[in-house]
Amino acid sequence: MSTDTSAETTIFSRRESEARSYCRSFDTVFAKAKGAEMTDTQGRTYIDFLAGCSSLNYGHNDPDMKEALVEHIASDGIAHGLDMFTAEKAKFLKAYEDNILAPRGMDYKIMMTGPTGTNAVEAAMKLARKVTGRRNIVSFTNGFHGMTMGSLSLTGNAGKRAGAGGGSLADVTHMPFEGAFGDGVDTLGQMEMLLDNPSSGIDAPAAFIFEPVQGEGGLNAASNEWMQGVARLAKKLGALLIVDDIQSGCGRTGTYFGFEEAGIEPDMITQAKSLSGFGLPFAALLIKPEHDIWGPAEHNGTFRGNTHAFVTGRVALEKFWADDTFQKDVQHKSALLTAGLQAIADVLPEARLKGRGMMQGVDVGSGELAGDICARAFDKGLIIETSGAHDEVVKVLAPLTISEETLRKGLNILLDAARDATVNTKIAAE
Amino acid sequence: MSTDTSAETTIFSRRESEARSYCRSFDTVFAKAKGAEMTDTQGRTYIDFLAGCSSLNYGHNDPDMKEALVEHIASDGIAHGLDMFTAEKAKFLKAYEDNILAPRGMDYKIMMTGPTGTNAVEAAMKLARKVTGRRNIVSFTNGFHGMTMGSLSLTGNAGKRAGAGGGSLADVTHMPFEGAFGDGVDTLGQMEMLLDNPSSGIDAPAAFIFEPVQGEGGLNAASNEWMQGVARLAKKLGALLIVDDIQSGCGRTGTYFGFEEAGIEPDMITQAKSLSGFGLPFAALLIKPEHDIWGPAEHNGTFRGNTHAFVTGRVALEKFWADDTFQKDVQHKSALLTAGLQAIADVLPEARLKGRGMMQGVDVGSGELAGDICARAFDKGLIIETSGAHDEVVKVLAPLTISEETLRKGLNILLDAARDATVNTKIAAE
Amino acid sequence: MSTDTSAETTIFSRRESEARSYCRSFDTVFAKAKGAEMTDTQGRTYIDFLAGCSSLNYGHNDPDMKEALVEHIASDGIAHGLDMFTAEKAKFLKAYEDNILAPRGMDYKIMMTGPTGTNAVEAAMKLARKVTGRRNIVSFTNGFHGMTMGSLSLTGNAGKRAGAGGGSLADVTHMPFEGAFGDGVDTLGQMEMLLDNPSSGIDAPAAFIFEPVQGEGGLNAASNEWMQGVARLAKKLGALLIVDDIQSGCGRTGTYFGFEEAGIEPDMITQAKSLSGFGLPFAALLIKPEHDIWGPAEHNGTFRGNTHAFVTGRVALEKFWADDTFQKDVQHKSALLTAGLQAIADVLPEARLKGRGMMQGVDVGSGELAGDICARAFDKGLIIETSGAHDEVVKVLAPLTISEETLRKGLNILLDAARDATVNTKIAAE
Amino acid sequence: MSTDTSAETTIFSRRESEARSYCRSFDTVFAKAKGAEMTDTQGRTYIDFLAGCSSLNYGHNDPDMKEALVEHIASDGIAHGLDMFTAEKAKFLKAYEDNILAPRGMDYKIMMTGPTGTNAVEAAMKLARKVTGRRNIVSFTNGFHGMTMGSLSLTGNAGKRAGAGGGSLADVTHMPFEGAFGDGVDTLGQMEMLLDNPSSGIDAPAAFIFEPVQGEGGLNAASNEWMQGVARLAKKLGALLIVDDIQSGCGRTGTYFGFEEAGIEPDMITQAKSLSGFGLPFAALLIKPEHDIWGPAEHNGTFRGNTHAFVTGRVALEKFWADDTFQKDVQHKSALLTAGLQAIADVLPEARLKGRGMMQGVDVGSGELAGDICARAFDKGLIIETSGAHDEVVKVLAPLTISEETLRKGLNILLDAARDATVNTKIAAE
Repeated sequence: MSTDTSAETTIFSRRESEARSYCRSFDTVFAKAKGAEMTDTQGRTYIDFLAGCSSLNYGHNDPDMKEALVEHIASDGIAHGLDMFTAEKAKFLKAYEDNILAPRGMDYKIMMTGPTGTNAVEAAMKLARKVTGRRNIVSFTNGFHGMTMGSLSLTGNAGKRAGAGGGSLADVTHMPFEGAFGDGVDTLGQMEMLLDNPSSGIDAPAAFIFEPVQGEGGLNAASNEWMQGVARLAKKLGALLIVDDIQSGCGRTGTYFGFEEAGIEPDMITQAKSLSGFGLPFAALLIKPEHDIWGPAEHNGTFRGNTHAFVTGRVALEKFWADDTFQKDVQHKSALLTAGLQAIADVLPEARLKGRGMMQGVDVGSGELAGDICARAFDKGLIIETSGAHDEVVKVLAPLTISEETLRKGLNILLDAARDATVNTKIAAE
Repeated sequence: MSTDTSAETTIFSRRESEARSYCRSFDTVFAKAKGAEMTDTQGRTYIDFLAGCSSLNYGHNDPDMKEALVEHIASDGIAHGLDMFTAEKAKFLKAYEDNILAPRGMDYKIMMTGPTGTNAVEAAMKLARKVTGRRNIVSFTNGFHGMTMGSLSLTGNAGKRAGAGGGSLADVTHMPFEGAFGDGVDTLGQMEMLLDNPSSGIDAPAAFIFEPVQGEGGLNAASNEWMQGVARLAKKLGALLIVDDIQSGCGRTGTYFGFEEAGIEPDMITQAKSLSGFGLPFAALLIKPEHDIWGPAEHNGTFRGNTHAFVTGRVALEKFWADDTFQKDVQHKSALLTAGLQAIADVLPEARLKGRGMMQGVDVGSGELAGDICARAFDKGLIIETSGAHDEVVKVLAPLTISEETLRKGLNILLDAARDATVNTKIAAE
Repeated sequence: MSTDTSAETTIFSRRESEARSYCRSFDTVFAKAKGAEMTDTQGRTYIDFLAGCSSLNYGHNDPDMKEALVEHIASDGIAHGLDMFTAEKAKFLKAYEDNILAPRGMDYKIMMTGPTGTNAVEAAMKLARKVTGRRNIVSFTNGFHGMTMGSLSLTGNAGKRAGAGGGSLADVTHMPFEGAFGDGVDTLGQMEMLLDNPSSGIDAPAAFIFEPVQGEGGLNAASNEWMQGVARLAKKLGALLIVDDIQSGCGRTGTYFGFEEAGIEPDMITQAKSLSGFGLPFAALLIKPEHDIWGPAEHNGTFRGNTHAFVTGRVALEKFWADDTFQKDVQHKSALLTAGLQAIADVLPEARLKGRGMMQGVDVGSGELAGDICARAFDKGLIIETSGAHDEVVKVLAPLTISEETLRKGLNILLDAARDATVNTKIAAE
Repeated sequence: MSTDTSAETTIFSRRESEARSYCRSFDTVFAKAKGAEMTDTQGRTYIDFLAGCSSLNYGHNDPDMKEALVEHIASDGIAHGLDMFTAEKAKFLKAYEDNILAPRGMDYKIMMTGPTGTNAVEAAMKLARKVTGRRNIVSFTNGFHGMTMGSLSLTGNAGKRAGAGGGSLADVTHMPFEGAFGDGVDTLGQMEMLLDNPSSGIDAPAAFIFEPVQGEGGLNAASNEWMQGVARLAKKLGALLIVDDIQSGCGRTGTYFGFEEAGIEPDMITQAKSLSGFGLPFAALLIKPEHDIWGPAEHNGTFRGNTHAFVTGRVALEKFWADDTFQKDVQHKSALLTAGLQAIADVLPEARLKGRGMMQGVDVGSGELAGDICARAFDKGLIIETSGAHDEVVKVLAPLTISEETLRKGLNILLDAARDATVNTKIAAE
């Protein structure tokens, strides 16, 4: 079912930088998208198990958001308002307060950073250093926090770090994430010993930053105990706790925030990806009021507070988070996902499940095999990608709004692809 | 004509971070915008001489872009496609090639970076270091390039730099911009002497980066000779030339690029702000093909290639840049602007004009006076801001599409505000 | 037996910087020294269990070195020759080759760095980065490598690091030294896991640097297996192995080098302290010939190759290292030391022995107790100091040439001091 | 008159690191030295116009220092006492107070740093940052301050900086030294404009550091006005003033300190090289009492306070600085030197004199010519070296105690060498 897209894609090879990436795995030109499906210019439809890397938790072109956005644009609503007061921003903030903060008893200020996850992370790093007067930030192995120099200094991936071209990625200590040394090793206790030792050479941290479930790092899900331990350690050391919930937030793990079940109270929380609800560029940093010591414009930017995103983001909050219906539905589908992935893991010799909620996958043991499975899946009409330090995890990031039927259909394609890949591997081995 | 907005703005003071800024100068809640005007929730209309800090060069809600965007959304066009191939991206690239590159005989690859100016700058820094194997980058006094750690290291403003909270802003040499030591000092020649001296302690640069007209730094316009000199020096030293055209590009100075008249060929050009045409988050980095040595995803990000921005950006290119009509019109209005600003400068004792094209202003001698003028202008229905190291420049960044009538009206308000402020200053002095 | 030295020491409090330290513990003015004893201006004699922090392994004023040095000076031998060829340097190099390198089958180039340990460490760091093209250097918890910015970046002690006043101590990863997490934790295996993980965020190292026995860090002695493991890991990763043998070398642990029994072949070895034999400032860096890629004067300094130290250092090599007599004697005395320390540990509730060879001590459980013991010992005529992250180790660094009788005498004083301190502690507790 | 030293020097090529340098210019093995002369193993005697790079201001083996040192050693005086109180340190401090500080009305604490110039510089950097809470330090083009990472960050020379192997040399701003842009450019005023501009990107400095006469940088002598200007600017900005007097101090320029005639009061002064009087490793940092906020051992080191150097250094202070006899003699000889150098400059087409006092030389226009002149001089029995960014300055650093006769003799050799080199150049050009 492959299509010759070469004529259509000439313009990309001629004019788009070699940095382009996903288009290399999914070699077709997309034209339309709705819910959990994308359609290319040839009319072929794909199930989307990538969902904009968790930026489309509510699916493509949700009808309610779409309607509100079209109405906003058609009536000359503001598209760009810098960080001036707008009616849309007011409504968004109110919806966030009513549907997210208040029900959870949370008290945070919201900083509209530049509309990318990395910008929210950079703002958090700067503020943590400003608040504490310290420089060192503890991040964790396999963590991914962005590509600008501050965020990149937190990020584990060697290939991404090489992109710095030798620029300094200093003032960060990379510690083992839970499970980095295998089961049964108390990495939390070891980290505490290091940080308690005044001769460790590891400077007192301004902050700890972690992802509740590491998206790019291989769907490593932190336990509640580990998250609580990091929170406790941060407090003990006078460091701030930053949770990077960019990929794991907005319902992805089954609750609005990826750390809710741990009961921790981060000093800062980064949000982006699905925050607009519609896939529009948008990011924010939640800050405990006592830490909100920014001067006006001390961290600024042109596109802070994307007004279109305020519109769609507000609809998303009101539609999906006013009560727990959606949350329960996500948890129900998460169980289906686990079962489906287990069936896939069963056909693969050394496979094991990874992740949590609607952010699960299968570690198939090698990047080669995982890549092969994803390529075969795409040929069969499923968009899906790998993650992990060796790209060894087949990662499912379906829209949370996906129907059970489509979810099953996608999982079946994946199972087929895994079977084919296994057969092929065996043949090659003989 | 002031309005009590306190009830309406409670939500902002309660929930929005103290980092918010423009809303402090323009204390009203905006609801609609069209062309060169914004309207608040009380129905009051303001002339917009800020234009999203040059992000709205084509005005608010241009009807053609609006129509195309509504059509795109209504028909389930893609909102978020990561960096996959989309029909909209292809059309945008083609339009960029046809209307911008080809007519100017330019050959560049286009990198869709995260949709903020700072992200394009960070990508340029990383690539320059990667290409040259060097670390040092030369930026210039009063330069502004963004708030993430890489871009911030290039940025001159001490207040912004303090926001780093002590994080390292290394690997950059800050050199005097043209005119930094007053007229008649050959800062270019001095810089060359420093860089030619093997004992200067200034490491061989990977790149030079400058803005053709410094927007935040006080509307300092580089001469063609200076730009040519920097280009020549970069070439001689084996360094790359990066032009940060984020605020000065997209027609702002009277040509599409802010450096066109200098006839230089930058190795990289950063674009953002008005690139989408509609005020949507969007940025790109133009790279000479021989430097496009990125590996796939070596610099990545979730919102690279905002599909909505492809739609509106394409319309902007086709509508305004297919021939030189628009350009000539901008140049005509620039002359009106110069005349209007001269009239204002004439009522101020030590004022002098700054800038170039539709990016001009008046250095009124002190930040206090400039702030007073802008506040009075806002009371009279004009949105306008200051810039400069001491906020001493009243800066006009009107939409390029503004009608002559509205331009004149705005300038008259500004003249009134300046007169009032002067009278007030005299009274205060007596 | 305390003396009022206040009149004599006025000049120090008036003119010497507050950075002075040992004089605070040993509040008397010393005038003469011979072998293992120092005498103050009041004629009081002290047994020296500090030995210039291992700079006087052959005791004070060894008669043969003294004679050679006096003869050299009296005959207008060169005192300062920059790094020109001198007869004394030739003889020293020959003696080093004949007595140290050749018998051990070692092939190294010798770099005369500035005559301080920290300078040799800085040279090693620079060369390792130059050779590998990498920046990161792995050092270990509780490591001490010097106070200049490069060496300080390797050093663990938070108080020392604070001395940098906020200067950047980047490009170093601090890993747990053997035993840092208690017995039975395979820190070596964990380190390997981290460094093998391409997403650990820990950049590929240029070098590993460790002390075979950590002098300042608390007499932590690395096992042969651990040293072999680090050597193997360095080789596997393409990193250089630097052994900092400044305090543990020159026979201190019972062999000339502190790592000899591990059978490893470091790429570089730093030497200082006892290298001159006489306590004169002198340091050197041993470099495997294939790594000696320095350009002429690429790392230079005024006092490289202290000619007086060449004279005494040569005598030391010929006198003590021509055969294994001295080495065996040191090993014999090491056993006496162990026994003596065990007797001391037996009177202290939670004490445990630390270290190896003539570099042993007792961890008494708290810095307060250790300090009290040392202060009491000094009152009884014994010079001795503490070490460790909490100053909790009473450290014996007697001259290797000390007579058995004096060693016993010193240990008896220490035992008395420990008993007194314990009694005192009990009384205080009651 | 060349000698085959190959047999003798095998040991050096076999065992000494390629970093060795001076021995490459002076290819013979030295054995004895007295006053202003050195003698090699073949019995050949050379006039020494290098004087240990200003470490032998009082000549080789001064008889009074020699006698005192031999007496000290012979009587078992202390060789190494860490930083304990010793009788010799007390006497040295008293002599420094009586002969240097008191007569000049100066009040400083003396910090015995590691016995190398670079260590004193590192201590000054750390303390300046600690005192001010700022990180940036301003150093100057062509400055040379040492090879350890802190000092190297201040140093201008690109070749030396490359020795860092990519280690970070951050937190320093390199400004033009007086005259760096040629005569008549007010670099001081320009520097002030940059530092006064809050948008310059140059962070508020912790300190300024300069050499009164740049030794390695080409004998650039700062004017009194320039030194006063830097002092004034430092004070205005709340930065400390550090004078690096390592090469220019101890009488080299005609007064004890190289900045005396400027009447400035540095916050810190680094001393090394000739401080011991005898060429022994020794360095110190003078600190204004109010800045002496070091904690005990916060900057430490094994060889702080070389006791042998206390002995010889004290004799030097008492012998040469008790009154102004020596100083006047140096000033007299400086005039002879100027005259002699002028005669040399007269035979060279584009030569010009550089430097001040007994720290003068001739800029001959190219490193090639300067090197040729020095090589020819050595063949004729004169030890002399070049300096400058391009090694273009023939530099005379004769002992200050040199007899007029020997000074003349050396200058005549230099004149001959210059003539020969010129003739040779002309022949080559034809």
